[in-house]
Amino acid sequence: MNLPRPIRKLIESFEKLPGIGPKTAQRLTFYLLHVPQDQLDEFAQSLTSLKKATVLCSRCFNVAETDPCPVCQDDRRDKTVICVVEQPLDVLALEKTNHYQGLYHVLHGAISPLNNIGPDELYISQFVSRVKKSWQNGAAVKEVILGTNANMEGEATAMYIKNQLNSLMVTGDGLPAGKAGLRVTRLGQGLPTGGDLEYADEVTLSRALEGRRKY
Amino acid sequence: MNLPRPIRKLIESFEKLPGIGPKTAQRLTFYLLHVPQDQLDEFAQSLTSLKKATVLCSRCFNVAETDPCPVCQDDRRDKTVICVVEQPLDVLALEKTNHYQGLYHVLHGAISPLNNIGPDELYISQFVSRVKKSWQNGAAVKEVILGTNANMEGEATAMYIKNQLNSLMVTGDGLPAGKAGLRVTRLGQGLPTGGDLEYADEVTLSRALEGRRKY
Repeated sequence: MNLPRPIRKLIESFEKLPGIGPKTAQRLTFYLLHVPQDQLDEFAQSLTSLKKATVLCSRCFNVAETDPCPVCQDDRRDKTVICVVEQPLDVLALEKTNHYQGLYHVLHGAISPLNNIGPDELYISQFVSRVKKSWQNGAAVKEVILGTNANMEGEATAMYIKNQLNSLMVTGDGLPAGKAGLRVTRLGQGLPTGGDLEYADEVTLSRALEGRRKY
Repeated sequence: MNLPRPIRKLIESFEKLPGIGPKTAQRLTFYLLHVPQDQLDEFAQSLTSLKKATVLCSRCFNVAETDPCPVCQDDRRDKTVICVVEQPLDVLALEKTNHYQGLYHVLHGAISPLNNIGPDELYISQFVSRVKKSWQNGAAVKEVILGTNANMEGEATAMYIKNQLNSLMVTGDGLPAGKAGLRVTRLGQGLPTGGDLEYADEVTLSRALEGRRKY
């Protein structure tokens, strides 16, 4: 006996999602059989309009309904600081801290030669020209926070962007005279809150030692 | 900053699914942002047509595209044996064994007073009248295999159905004269294949002892 075609097709669609195997896909599909039709329609509607009703902000490349996005439009935000992150979800995580008042730049990935993702696949050149342009039109960017992930790909991406910004400063192209230049920082690394020293790996502990602060 | 509305709505839809929390819902939604639009449309199409293009078989209440379902229509199946299961997925599991040639009856749940599910919420009365009708029109059901789950709800449901069938046999209503009556069986219980005796719980081991067979 084969499953009915509509059921099989929905299982296949669920299986394509990351982290959802055949068993979970089956379970979800059979669960949805017991759900009212209008809830199914709403789900379907959200799926079709997901990409149609959203755009990438032309300044920070975050996903938004408007261009520029609400963060880039907000006059209360500090336009001299830009935090570079890999994904839109990273923006959300940083916004939840209520601790950051600057702008963002979303790369939509990290440099990963194994997956054939080089700097050209990311929004890096757009970021460099965004910084350069800010120097030319008054609202000069003073600090770039490299907020890529603390893994190999994230470190490689941070390193690449730092080099790009350095060469920009060497040429001094467009940099306002008499300015101290650009401060490039990286998000602090060390023990996560609630983390046990005992279970921390060597790299994390080394980073925590390097990043120790006056108490 | 709030997430764009289309994204938020899709996250909410995912969150309603069993076993999918807010973090997974976010991850799935942002993954879908990178998926081609036609794949999203196909997913949405599968969702809307899931219930529209399927029916419950009027005989066994399994989910199917046609009524009666392919199993009930199949002349090669043994119509004198019916296996009673809780869910359509149970039918699938039994079919995969290639070991069962009888028919099915899907209850769509199990008796669970804690969740306000009594016998009337399930397709139990339909099953009893199905058995009774089979006695009247020649193709008499000779065996009922109670294939509900081996947990408390499944056992209660099996017990309830057994009592219903017993009282049916006492009245003998429609039972063909000279027939030995109905054999009611329960799926065997004991150690699962690959299971270690050492780690089996007491109930499973007791059942395995009760169910021991000549070797």
